[in-house]
Amino acid sequence: MELYNRTQIQEVVELDQAALEAVEAGFRALGQGRVVQPPILSMAIEESNGEVDVKTAHIRGNERFAIKVSPGFFDNPLIGLPSLNGLMIVFSAKTGLVEAVLFDEGYLTDIRTALAGAIAAKHLARKDSRRAAVIGAGVQAELQVAALKLVRDIDTVDVWARDTDRAEAYAARMRARFEGLTVNVHGDIESACREADVIITTTPSKSPLLKAEHLSNGVHVTAMGSDSPEKRELDVSVMTRADAFVVDTRAQSETNGELKVWAGNTVPFEAHEMGQVIAAGSSPRIGRDQITVCDLTGTGVQDTAIAGFALKRLTA
Amino acid sequence: MELYNRTQIQEVVELDQAALEAVEAGFRALGQGRVVQPPILSMAIEESNGEVDVKTAHIRGNERFAIKVSPGFFDNPLIGLPSLNGLMIVFSAKTGLVEAVLFDEGYLTDIRTALAGAIAAKHLARKDSRRAAVIGAGVQAELQVAALKLVRDIDTVDVWARDTDRAEAYAARMRARFEGLTVNVHGDIESACREADVIITTTPSKSPLLKAEHLSNGVHVTAMGSDSPEKRELDVSVMTRADAFVVDTRAQSETNGELKVWAGNTVPFEAHEMGQVIAAGSSPRIGRDQITVCDLTGTGVQDTAIAGFALKRLTA
Repeated sequence: MELYNRTQIQEVVELDQAALEAVEAGFRALGQGRVVQPPILSMAIEESNGEVDVKTAHIRGNERFAIKVSPGFFDNPLIGLPSLNGLMIVFSAKTGLVEAVLFDEGYLTDIRTALAGAIAAKHLARKDSRRAAVIGAGVQAELQVAALKLVRDIDTVDVWARDTDRAEAYAARMRARFEGLTVNVHGDIESACREADVIITTTPSKSPLLKAEHLSNGVHVTAMGSDSPEKRELDVSVMTRADAFVVDTRAQSETNGELKVWAGNTVPFEAHEMGQVIAAGSSPRIGRDQITVCDLTGTGVQDTAIAGFALKRLTA
Repeated sequence: MELYNRTQIQEVVELDQAALEAVEAGFRALGQGRVVQPPILSMAIEESNGEVDVKTAHIRGNERFAIKVSPGFFDNPLIGLPSLNGLMIVFSAKTGLVEAVLFDEGYLTDIRTALAGAIAAKHLARKDSRRAAVIGAGVQAELQVAALKLVRDIDTVDVWARDTDRAEAYAARMRARFEGLTVNVHGDIESACREADVIITTTPSKSPLLKAEHLSNGVHVTAMGSDSPEKRELDVSVMTRADAFVVDTRAQSETNGELKVWAGNTVPFEAHEMGQVIAAGSSPRIGRDQITVCDLTGTGVQDTAIAGFALKRLTA
């Protein structure tokens, strides 16, 4: 059994085509019905404003599977610690023996989350997409654009965040990271989204931010912020306006994602699953002017896929 | 963050009063409503005859909590590996940071499972219990008796197992381990249980083994084998015959334990929870001739309790 720390993992795993293909293969297997993926285990530690989630999945026939443990303790920044943390345990799918523990401190979650956004755009966004609107200015606001650039030639980012100073700092970081990238800071969501080919929402919002009036014909939206029963980023009008609506998994979207608005009721449109879109090999976008929307909550199969990918690189 | 292996953990944790009190305190907190204990995460790896369970719980106000991952791969013995395995991750309940990983390979699970049996007997069995009937001849058949001896002066064990050779080997091990202990091997369950003050069932049986006709007045039964939707050890007649029926948690007994027979229907008797019995400080046994039955499925709070206990001893 081997142990790896964040630095070792960062040296071999980054946002690249190979990592994207590994996560995409996980989704494809899910869409083909070749994945066992139990519901998320979630526990609140209320007195510390904390929670811990456990996610896992097994791709049938794979040599290994991972179990990911993600603590989120949201008062940590007050004492100089990051909110998010965690590790992945990689098991042999033949014997159940631990092959490795990846003490990635949430790094691989960041990576696989960003890659899911890129995979959504790969299958749903217009191929000539150049301009991305980003709502939020945190880690995923940065990584989602970096991953999106693997699949679309993004030359302009329009950012809006509740805190304008953070949006300005984000713009500076992005200009430094990507030579030639134009980054505009906007004072409201409407203005940020006006020219967007792709809109990415990356916030921990508990009430809807994005409305149908912010969408232009032909836009693709990826909403990756909502991942718990309290969070929401999309107004109902965004979802009913979409020509095609896709989720990572329907069950999770209904509890933790945007479909939770219809909990217990019939969803008034077809919700495709991303794995099925990938497995089918044909996009639900059937025209330049259509609006596509994808809601990501984060799935165990992404964790198993990225952990297996990381371990292969670590032991290569 | 510290890592500890099985040998290090075995050096400091054994079946003693202090460990028993730690696990009992966990149950008491559960009974007092001071524990967050989410449902078990369970995933099958069918092609390898394997499964993996994740259990956790947090005792409110405690400094740390544990997450336990238990793989069971039942073809492993064919290639010379143990079926059961696993590790416990101990987190700070203030920050979510990993404090330690206990690579105990299932040792702490064995210990806390045996202690739960002893705790059940402490609160339910007659104080003058001397004779224990043990059904099964595996690891828990041995550890349950060792733990029971912490709370009752057991001088005689009557064992029955499907495989008589294994029962004989068990008897030899027990005589060697406990000086002065009388161990009798029986050819059937009825004969093994005839003189019992305490009966402990420790099998992976999928159909009921123990019937009401095997019970004498005043006996206490602990059924610790059933811990998954397929397993059962107790005939319905044992449960309806009991003057007091206790479970570790009702929710788990209904899915994984003996109450599953009534899934979706009303259980035709009162099922007490062990934590509530401990918290109340009064046994549901109100006479010498009463029959008490306890069904144990294994709970996250036991894992959090034993992991915290182990880490305290490891860092003392």
